[in-house]
Amino acid sequence: MALPFDRSEYAARIAAVEQEMARRGLDALLISDPANMNYLTGYDGWSYYVPQAVVVVGGEEQPYWFGRPQDANGARLTTWLDDEHISSYPETHIHQPDRHPMDVAAQLLERLGCGAKTIGVEMDACYFSAQAYARLTQHLPNAQFQDAKLLVNWKRLVKSPAELDLMRKAARIADHAMDVARRSIAVGRRESDAAAAVYRAEISGVDGIMGDYTALAPLMPSNERTSASHLSVVDRRYAAGDRVTVELAGCHQRYHAPLARTFSLGKPPARLADLAAAVVEAMDSALAAVRPGTSCAGVEAAWRRVFTRHGYEKDSRLGYAVGLGYPPDWGEHTANLRAGDERVLWPNMTFHMIAGMWFDDYGIELSETIAVTETGVEVLTNFERDLLVVEG
Amino acid sequence: MALPFDRSEYAARIAAVEQEMARRGLDALLISDPANMNYLTGYDGWSYYVPQAVVVVGGEEQPYWFGRPQDANGARLTTWLDDEHISSYPETHIHQPDRHPMDVAAQLLERLGCGAKTIGVEMDACYFSAQAYARLTQHLPNAQFQDAKLLVNWKRLVKSPAELDLMRKAARIADHAMDVARRSIAVGRRESDAAAAVYRAEISGVDGIMGDYTALAPLMPSNERTSASHLSVVDRRYAAGDRVTVELAGCHQRYHAPLARTFSLGKPPARLADLAAAVVEAMDSALAAVRPGTSCAGVEAAWRRVFTRHGYEKDSRLGYAVGLGYPPDWGEHTANLRAGDERVLWPNMTFHMIAGMWFDDYGIELSETIAVTETGVEVLTNFERDLLVVEG
Repeated sequence: MALPFDRSEYAARIAAVEQEMARRGLDALLISDPANMNYLTGYDGWSYYVPQAVVVVGGEEQPYWFGRPQDANGARLTTWLDDEHISSYPETHIHQPDRHPMDVAAQLLERLGCGAKTIGVEMDACYFSAQAYARLTQHLPNAQFQDAKLLVNWKRLVKSPAELDLMRKAARIADHAMDVARRSIAVGRRESDAAAAVYRAEISGVDGIMGDYTALAPLMPSNERTSASHLSVVDRRYAAGDRVTVELAGCHQRYHAPLARTFSLGKPPARLADLAAAVVEAMDSALAAVRPGTSCAGVEAAWRRVFTRHGYEKDSRLGYAVGLGYPPDWGEHTANLRAGDERVLWPNMTFHMIAGMWFDDYGIELSETIAVTETGVEVLTNFERDLLVVEG
Repeated sequence: MALPFDRSEYAARIAAVEQEMARRGLDALLISDPANMNYLTGYDGWSYYVPQAVVVVGGEEQPYWFGRPQDANGARLTTWLDDEHISSYPETHIHQPDRHPMDVAAQLLERLGCGAKTIGVEMDACYFSAQAYARLTQHLPNAQFQDAKLLVNWKRLVKSPAELDLMRKAARIADHAMDVARRSIAVGRRESDAAAAVYRAEISGVDGIMGDYTALAPLMPSNERTSASHLSVVDRRYAAGDRVTVELAGCHQRYHAPLARTFSLGKPPARLADLAAAVVEAMDSALAAVRPGTSCAGVEAAWRRVFTRHGYEKDSRLGYAVGLGYPPDWGEHTANLRAGDERVLWPNMTFHMIAGMWFDDYGIELSETIAVTETGVEVLTNFERDLLVVEG
């Protein structure tokens, strides 16, 4: 079993989470977000389509993995937990109308002495269903449930040197995949073949750095489909005059470095070229504003000053904390580069700074993955920061 | 906008869902499962990492799409809904501690006249969080909420001829991807390069049939990692004597045909060869049992009779309904090929029949995607049904 981090790093994560639990009066924490499960235990498997959890009990060194029997070996192979910290519900609880895995999770919480304690749950985690919560509260009437919100996510915001190293490797893969996109988006080529080349580059990796599936699939809409933010390819061949937005990521050991660019096959229309010039200048300005002590909102304000001067407006956020992730999202859901977010930047915070805009019949995307340094910014991704014109 | 189905097919789906809603006394249905959203409206975007929904109001012809502003154009481009049936919450509701998109969904339900009605919600859908439900009930104190459970999923169980056609195409891609796996798993090859080739095959497709991202990533664990069901590749090169399980799918227009096989690099160990022979024979027996009028449990019993005779046991189900899907799952969560599921087979039901077993230090997988016909079974996938021995 090769864990991506030293045991001491996991121990420090557990200690930080337990400290925050104590501050909030939580005796236990039931974690459903697979990125948080991985962060605390190393667990890595595509098993989040069935209920599963990691339970942290205040004061205990090791958390508890809980899931399906056929995934328990996966927990043994990918986590640092002792065998007695890995348990499962009966296979007969899978997709049954009258039973639910969380019925058994409630028993586990009882066994761990938490049946009448205060238990934190991630109320808005993708994989913590309304039914899962209903079952827990029903079976543990003497427990008090509290929304733990993004307790673990916030602990992930500042990366360790080892985490930053993984993100730098992920960024190499992102650069490589974007380079493959640039060479694949060509007049006459099927959109799906270009996408296929990008998938391959993401998984194969580069320079001996292995890739992994990304928490969002590569998004490569063309033409009017660039007016929406999350569409992908269709069954056609690229033609001269096409515009394509590409949002992809490198993923290494589940750490992500996303990267977005906009392509024009041939000379771009003036409105797109003008917009792109403003976007690039505004993003340069935002990047220059990144340093410890500046707020998230301050970075966005630096962007907005330049962008407004060019006569444009952008409603959506300029970026968000990024790192460890599983489908459906590589964002950490904590700090956001937008007006009103007064969180102060700190060295080793990492963000996906993304200028994405979607209009009635076209759109544009330009992004970088960045880390805050002691004195400014390290742009982890490294690809020509411009509207990319390919032959068309 | 090219919808995968005729408008009349969507209309029939809505009518069937509304009939069942009436039977259950539901005035409205708020749908969170992206496969169900797609089934009723055509909506296709990787936007399920933020709250979104499709609302069906009893007696109305068109449902309502509800989501993020930057995805509303995606709804315009991929659904058959009129513009006034597409609405969004403010971008300022994304990832905020004090606001939630479902606050605005509650307003939509009010506006649709459902504020004091009976509203069905998918309590156990992956993307219907405990928080989403808490917000809805808080804002609509006069509404009655009911667990709609798998109302729409059950309507998806019997496929239309047009749906079957898409699944046959998906199966062609699955066969092709497995063929690529067979040619890529070779001594000295990096596991991630083999996986990358499979991803490419899945997306590029075959014979002009375009692929799409699959609802589970291709799973290709080797050696002791085959003892868990949802692991993937690691950073190593294949060596003689390796065993690899490959579970992949073809996906076409979001319809899936999964396919699993087990590989041995060189002569397989006797225990694996013996097990594989029993698995193949038992699966042949199960396939021969598939016909209208037989129950799901009856199919599994046919498998079990043969498998037990060989001295083996398998705890987990032999398969499940399959079709339209989004990450994290291509299963439909309804009918299961297992003891106790007395549902009777009907023509055009589709299943992923999967014999997967995971032992202490090894595992095996063999699967087919099948459709029930008027008289028996159509095996949609078409690949040598055996333990696959490659040079090693």
